[in-house]
Amino acid sequence: MICVQKRLRLPAVRRGFHLITDLVTANLPELEQVQVGTLHVFIQHTSASLSINEKADPTVRHDFEQFFNRAVPENAPYFRHTLEGPDDMPAHLKAAMLGSSVTIPVTKGELALGTWQGIYLGEHRNDGGRRWIVLTLLGA
Amino acid sequence: MICVQKRLRLPAVRRGFHLITDLVTANLPELEQVQVGTLHVFIQHTSASLSINEKADPTVRHDFEQFFNRAVPENAPYFRHTLEGPDDMPAHLKAAMLGSSVTIPVTKGELALGTWQGIYLGEHRNDGGRRWIVLTLLGA
Amino acid sequence: MICVQKRLRLPAVRRGFHLITDLVTANLPELEQVQVGTLHVFIQHTSASLSINEKADPTVRHDFEQFFNRAVPENAPYFRHTLEGPDDMPAHLKAAMLGSSVTIPVTKGELALGTWQGIYLGEHRNDGGRRWIVLTLLGA
Repeated sequence: MICVQKRLRLPAVRRGFHLITDLVTANLPELEQVQVGTLHVFIQHTSASLSINEKADPTVRHDFEQFFNRAVPENAPYFRHTLEGPDDMPAHLKAAMLGSSVTIPVTKGELALGTWQGIYLGEHRNDGGRRWIVLTLLGA
Repeated sequence: MICVQKRLRLPAVRRGFHLITDLVTANLPELEQVQVGTLHVFIQHTSASLSINEKADPTVRHDFEQFFNRAVPENAPYFRHTLEGPDDMPAHLKAAMLGSSVTIPVTKGELALGTWQGIYLGEHRNDGGRRWIVLTLLGA
Repeated sequence: MICVQKRLRLPAVRRGFHLITDLVTANLPELEQVQVGTLHVFIQHTSASLSINEKADPTVRHDFEQFFNRAVPENAPYFRHTLEGPDDMPAHLKAAMLGSSVTIPVTKGELALGTWQGIYLGEHRNDGGRRWIVLTLLGA
């Protein structure tokens, strides 16, 4: 049984969606030891998200940001949680819709992602700073 | 290898979002035995959800309820699943958008949540009653 | 410790939501060996999703398709990722909102789903073809 955990601090990125697959795997050489298992990636914040989507065409990430900005508007008149700025409450809602973690199968030492899949960091604040993620690898 | 499972019945709560982190950890003393692992929390219902978000300010939970009531309207003219009342089909949709489970890393006997993170029970029915959750702790 | 993985190719289905619980369990006789654990089901595509919802009444699946078609419109004027057709970018967004995987507790050799819960395949393309899923069973 392999049970490995790492805590990583991501570089600060601008608001939007960013691929972090390579950063995750580069920090997890222990992946090679796992024949069968799962990798859990968790973000320790409530205004940023993790999801899995198309890695090849950057316009998908552009369209994600545009769509979610319309689906979750800033300055909704019924918002009460407004002290931290107009981007804060929408960031919490986007984080909940997209999720705080992804779990990915591991097969023969590699993430068993589909051909077009990558891990998206959703940075939903205008100035979110550096984010912490926790990687937990379970398997054999 | 530690492999522990508990089934818990939550108290009935009003429609909206509610913190259940303390209830989960209070019922899982086995957490202390895990140096590295994950806790999976699963809700056995299709009209309530689990998610992770801001625990400190209750206005965030208020704004969640207001937002999702607007994002998923009751009485949409195209709904066919209407026999159980106007809150039922929206509850299914909210549950799918937010999710039926959360997975949280465990580090040195504690949930590795960020400073501001808590586990939200989303009760999406007007009278959902008591809900069942299943906790599964895997690690070493 | 049990650590089993299977890769399955699903039959092609029309755009919409489809139950795959029975197909998953039929391909996983190893479930019977697990007293306590989790099953992770992962879809290796970025325009189809997995979620958990109501299995008994097919009108719920109808209403899901209708709702998500309205929540994520085709031909949004700001979309840039449009080369693969009007259903493509919405499919990526629906996949992100609903998720690429579900994790389900396993208890005494069976999925610990609630009475009304089933696994939904969300096929978000008009002609998505056959999809690959990866099942990872961890437990004891």
